[in-house]
Amino acid sequence: MNARRVPGVQVASIDAWRSAAPGSALLRHPDELAVEEPLEIQIAGEPLAVTMRTPGHDHELVAGFLLAEGLIRSRADLGGIHHCARPGSEGAHNTIDVLPAPGAVLEIDATRRGTLTTSACGMCGRKLIDDLLQRLRPAPPSTPFSQLFIAGLAGELEKQQPSFQRTGGLHAAGVALAHGTLSVVREDVGRHNAVDKVIGRLLLDGQLPVLGAILVVSGRVSFEIVQKALAAGLSGVVGVSAPSSLAVSTAARFGLLLCGFARGSAFNVYAGAERLAG
Amino acid sequence: MNARRVPGVQVASIDAWRSAAPGSALLRHPDELAVEEPLEIQIAGEPLAVTMRTPGHDHELVAGFLLAEGLIRSRADLGGIHHCARPGSEGAHNTIDVLPAPGAVLEIDATRRGTLTTSACGMCGRKLIDDLLQRLRPAPPSTPFSQLFIAGLAGELEKQQPSFQRTGGLHAAGVALAHGTLSVVREDVGRHNAVDKVIGRLLLDGQLPVLGAILVVSGRVSFEIVQKALAAGLSGVVGVSAPSSLAVSTAARFGLLLCGFARGSAFNVYAGAERLAG
Repeated sequence: MNARRVPGVQVASIDAWRSAAPGSALLRHPDELAVEEPLEIQIAGEPLAVTMRTPGHDHELVAGFLLAEGLIRSRADLGGIHHCARPGSEGAHNTIDVLPAPGAVLEIDATRRGTLTTSACGMCGRKLIDDLLQRLRPAPPSTPFSQLFIAGLAGELEKQQPSFQRTGGLHAAGVALAHGTLSVVREDVGRHNAVDKVIGRLLLDGQLPVLGAILVVSGRVSFEIVQKALAAGLSGVVGVSAPSSLAVSTAARFGLLLCGFARGSAFNVYAGAERLAG
Repeated sequence: MNARRVPGVQVASIDAWRSAAPGSALLRHPDELAVEEPLEIQIAGEPLAVTMRTPGHDHELVAGFLLAEGLIRSRADLGGIHHCARPGSEGAHNTIDVLPAPGAVLEIDATRRGTLTTSACGMCGRKLIDDLLQRLRPAPPSTPFSQLFIAGLAGELEKQQPSFQRTGGLHAAGVALAHGTLSVVREDVGRHNAVDKVIGRLLLDGQLPVLGAILVVSGRVSFEIVQKALAAGLSGVVGVSAPSSLAVSTAARFGLLLCGFARGSAFNVYAGAERLAG
């Protein structure tokens, strides 16, 4: 397998075999795969988390991840982000270290517990959902979005997925600011990574907080995607496919526009319909 | 939103709005969503992990998860699995506790570190991939699979996804034993959960270890899916969509049959082609 870099996204070339019809011989043919590798994120040398991602735009991924996890609140909390110190060594690109800005403290214990909680049994699962929601804040106000604008976003994203068209193995996310076209698009084997990269780019460019920004994702909308959009202060999420129940109830509770099945010129609205122009 | 149970899978009913054409009024219509809720897994009362899953088949999910994480090696390590003690309380179904069998010790620290490692910087990312692979064992031998058998699995899975057809928001996984039809199929908002549920069912039924079992998944094949198949001692994985580079290299290294883009009567073979009949 031979990995090489296309603009922004790594794709691996491989020889695969095609079974076109039962009973016929397998046909060897060249194919391309989305690259998946682990990235270890460290805070001042201490391991925080590992994510399986497509290499490239790692700085953005880390910035977006830290914002979504609540470890940083703005770019001002970030000192430096750099890959492992020995760039010559194999795999050095799979470890990245974050230094807090002078005076900033990144509370890594909360994130390390990550999915862990110390729920008292009497509260059980109820507390779990409350735990998930407690860090979230209402989506900021926005001027009304036209149906024409929302309907166009999924098609626009589809045109900017060159590596998906080659591999079929990548998710994509993009963001539109102030009712304009998609200003950042990223592809990744993990949908959550693509979202972190897009939001991380906005953060590193000093574009957060922002009013009237819409996140577009190539597939389904889970709770995690809604949570990341709210953490970044976006106004809406548009998905090409279905949202989950918790994505919808969370979006409704925090005033986020949530659209799904955005295909052609049609889409469904699951929450925040009041943000659409009549 | 009104959640109710269909056979095995929770679906929530909701009123959504449809934007069918820009400029026209939004049309209210009833819709159905895949239910997503957090499940906290505890070991003897101590929190281990939280996964976002579709409620239902939680015992299977936990059994499959523990096997994939290496906390248990067989059903004999499991004492009991039960939901939180107060079934009347709201959300009690979202906490589940595992008791080890007498004499069995579940090493939860390794899993809690989970994605965390203590890599020395000189090793960097290289060590990360080695870490991921070190618990894996070669896939067991199997008699040759016919192309006809492999080609039929994806279509068979598609026919057993009633809740996907209603919501568009669920992944599915199934397993075929000994060149037969799919014996277990599960749907979930998370592909990894659907796989854990299928493998957990086999484990709880005393069907592991097994020879010649093939896992089928409705979407892409990431490293995580290959890792779960190897941990369960399966012989192959068939995906409806693309595999990642690390899924392919790991399958090749451990002798697992890995097929992708299984649609109609055709599929691609990415690793383990020697397991197919000529």
